Amino acid sequence: MKFSKLYTKTRKTISDDSSINAKLLIQAGFIDQVMAGAYTYLPLGLRVLNKIENIVRQKMNAIGVEVLMPAVVPTELWEKTGRLDTVDVLGQVTAANAAAKAKNDGRYVISPTHEEVITPLAQKFVTSYKDLPCGYYQIQTKFRNEPRAKSGLLRCREFRMKDLYSFHVSEEDLKKYYEQSKDAYWSMYEALGIKNDTFIVKASGGDFTKDYSHEFQLRVDTGEDTVFRNIKTGECFNKEVAPDGAEKSGEYEIFKACEIGNIFPLNTKFSDAFDFTYKAEDGTNKKVYMGCYGVGTSRIMGVMVEKYHDEKGIIWPESVAPYKVHLVGLDLHDAEISAKVENVFATLQKHFPDEVIFDDRTEARAGEKFADADLVGCPLRVVVSRRSEDKVEVKKRNEKEATVMSLEEFVSKYSN
Amino acid sequence: MKFSKLYTKTRKTISDDSSINAKLLIQAGFIDQVMAGAYTYLPLGLRVLNKIENIVRQKMNAIGVEVLMPAVVPTELWEKTGRLDTVDVLGQVTAANAAAKAKNDGRYVISPTHEEVITPLAQKFVTSYKDLPCGYYQIQTKFRNEPRAKSGLLRCREFRMKDLYSFHVSEEDLKKYYEQSKDAYWSMYEALGIKNDTFIVKASGGDFTKDYSHEFQLRVDTGEDTVFRNIKTGECFNKEVAPDGAEKSGEYEIFKACEIGNIFPLNTKFSDAFDFTYKAEDGTNKKVYMGCYGVGTSRIMGVMVEKYHDEKGIIWPESVAPYKVHLVGLDLHDAEISAKVENVFATLQKHFPDEVIFDDRTEARAGEKFADADLVGCPLRVVVSRRSEDKVEVKKRNEKEATVMSLEEFVSKYSN
Repeated sequence: MKFSKLYTKTRKTISDDSSINAKLLIQAGFIDQVMAGAYTYLPLGLRVLNKIENIVRQKMNAIGVEVLMPAVVPTELWEKTGRLDTVDVLGQVTAANAAAKAKNDGRYVISPTHEEVITPLAQKFVTSYKDLPCGYYQIQTKFRNEPRAKSGLLRCREFRMKDLYSFHVSEEDLKKYYEQSKDAYWSMYEALGIKNDTFIVKASGGDFTKDYSHEFQLRVDTGEDTVFRNIKTGECFNKEVAPDGAEKSGEYEIFKACEIGNIFPLNTKFSDAFDFTYKAEDGTNKKVYMGCYGVGTSRIMGVMVEKYHDEKGIIWPESVAPYKVHLVGLDLHDAEISAKVENVFATLQKHFPDEVIFDDRTEARAGEKFADADLVGCPLRVVVSRRSEDKVEVKKRNEKEATVMSLEEFVSKYSN
Repeated sequence: MKFSKLYTKTRKTISDDSSINAKLLIQAGFIDQVMAGAYTYLPLGLRVLNKIENIVRQKMNAIGVEVLMPAVVPTELWEKTGRLDTVDVLGQVTAANAAAKAKNDGRYVISPTHEEVITPLAQKFVTSYKDLPCGYYQIQTKFRNEPRAKSGLLRCREFRMKDLYSFHVSEEDLKKYYEQSKDAYWSMYEALGIKNDTFIVKASGGDFTKDYSHEFQLRVDTGEDTVFRNIKTGECFNKEVAPDGAEKSGEYEIFKACEIGNIFPLNTKFSDAFDFTYKAEDGTNKKVYMGCYGVGTSRIMGVMVEKYHDEKGIIWPESVAPYKVHLVGLDLHDAEISAKVENVFATLQKHFPDEVIFDDRTEARAGEKFADADLVGCPLRVVVSRRSEDKVEVKKRNEKEATVMSLEEFVSKYSN
């Protein structure tokens, strides 16, 4: 991809500097703010989001099948679970004007979560113990009527999310699957390149279960959550369920973190509401047990920027970087150099298919191009200029010094 | 993929038989109805939708860059264009209950189309004639406050759509790009396998332009639109703009069709509303010209079923079939046969990666499995049973007779 074909630009000044991730992602041309808590994903940003979601998808396929539910659903489903009047981030959809109202005066829920849709769906296909366990997930745009939309992609009104729901013959089977889901999550964080600083943290089970639910928290200095980690056992708690006096006991390491996933035993809360039973092996009808498993995919994009950046810009983990190689062409007014850079671009594209971004701007100065490469944050910067002669100048985003080498050497060293 | 891992089932009876596509897609386990005009895409349906959208994406990349805009946007944007009170399918999002209202009493538009978002977005990046032309598109879930949601995936409240918007220095440049967009559309329909029966049809330009807009219409007996095709010139008109007396003149072939795309010269309607100008080569500020280009991707899925089916089920074009090969295993209670079928499955998966669905149900009868293979509609059915000995029995979905051949022969004949 060429810079000139992105149809976006990096920006010097921005109006939304509510957080490091919003500031850097907007400056670097990954997202554009439409209103508080709602962003357009620009070509670079959409590539990162897609890479994150494809990793999530791949790992979730181990424990479920992918579906896509509607976002706008009947209010009756939410009345059935008693959540229509209690969920304080719930939005509704109605006609926007008199002309629309005259045609359709309906009132719908715009879903922040999908237990109300997946439970009656599973009920259509699960009748016997032979149909269990099963898991369905989707990766979808969701809406929360968020009062304090802030912190860029960390707390949005509209956001992207993976939500998986599992169904079981018993609490025991749910618990077994719940442990498998942890494995799938760890594998996902490993593939995303953020496993090492991620902690599994006990949290409240709410009114669903007396057991804990679990959050996956990435250690980040600017995080909005606090993790209490028992120094001896490694057991982690969030603030809500941390042992009394943990703060002053000296037994806990306390640090800031961002939530990047959560898993929740729902037990029979929703199968009770929808009277969802299955025919057991002994011929009796039994209640289905459920669990739910969330990951905010757009949120992970924001959290990564909070964690991986320096004063010059973003430093993407290679797994989700918009492009692996950022080719900077200098002296492009010179036809000979320009032809040479185009050749380098063609060679790189062959060895890094669809993974090269080429700064082909003729009018931008060298300093501007270097600054933009650091801002955008791809793992490898390759510079070709009059000065580089028959070599290329290579710098990793997370290192300070550039190295001069032949193009062949670069390819053999960094392509897979 | 194994049938037993889809976590869905084919159904004998269904409640939504509003149309052929709804009936067959629900019976075959591609979609599930949540309410009138809103469906969950089940694993088979999501695969078809993704295949359609990937083809659309690939062809649109030739004329634009992909972005993703929020669905829920500020009402102010729609006030600015004067459409907040006039668009009769417009929905709004507000707090769903008192608890939500207390936290955030905001009112937003849920977008059926995105001129109100893309115009101010392009305005941020386009300042000079050097930045033009450019095109942005997205593939997104959209909402229309549809009064008569009906006909399955053909007229939904919530649906999937590709919408592309282009920006130009002049009406002349818009017209040039508009012709390029037609080429991209034809290439898209060709890749989808539906080009031969698609017609480009003149339609009203509404209040945007005195020129025509254009619809792409697929000839379908159950179509809701009527096309007037001039027998001599091949020129097509929709009902709204057909020449007076066309019906009785004998000069027109008249047939039913389903719209599967539309392109529209917007001219300066939206750049006027947002005062979107660019600095021209002569230093003056000039108005930006715009076009928009739509494709209902979920609608195409429905239209394909309307067109390609028989009394037994769906007949998918190979380009978008959920799987290329449908492997039916019979006599699976017999351990020897069961092992043999698993081997065939493994071989097929090697040669048709991720393109084999295996009916591994032990309890379903042969007739049931054959009926389901016809219902689901994959292009190639392969049967392995006690009777087939060291061969496999092969039947194309669109042919009546099966052929017996070795597995090697099947692979060499049908894998790419």
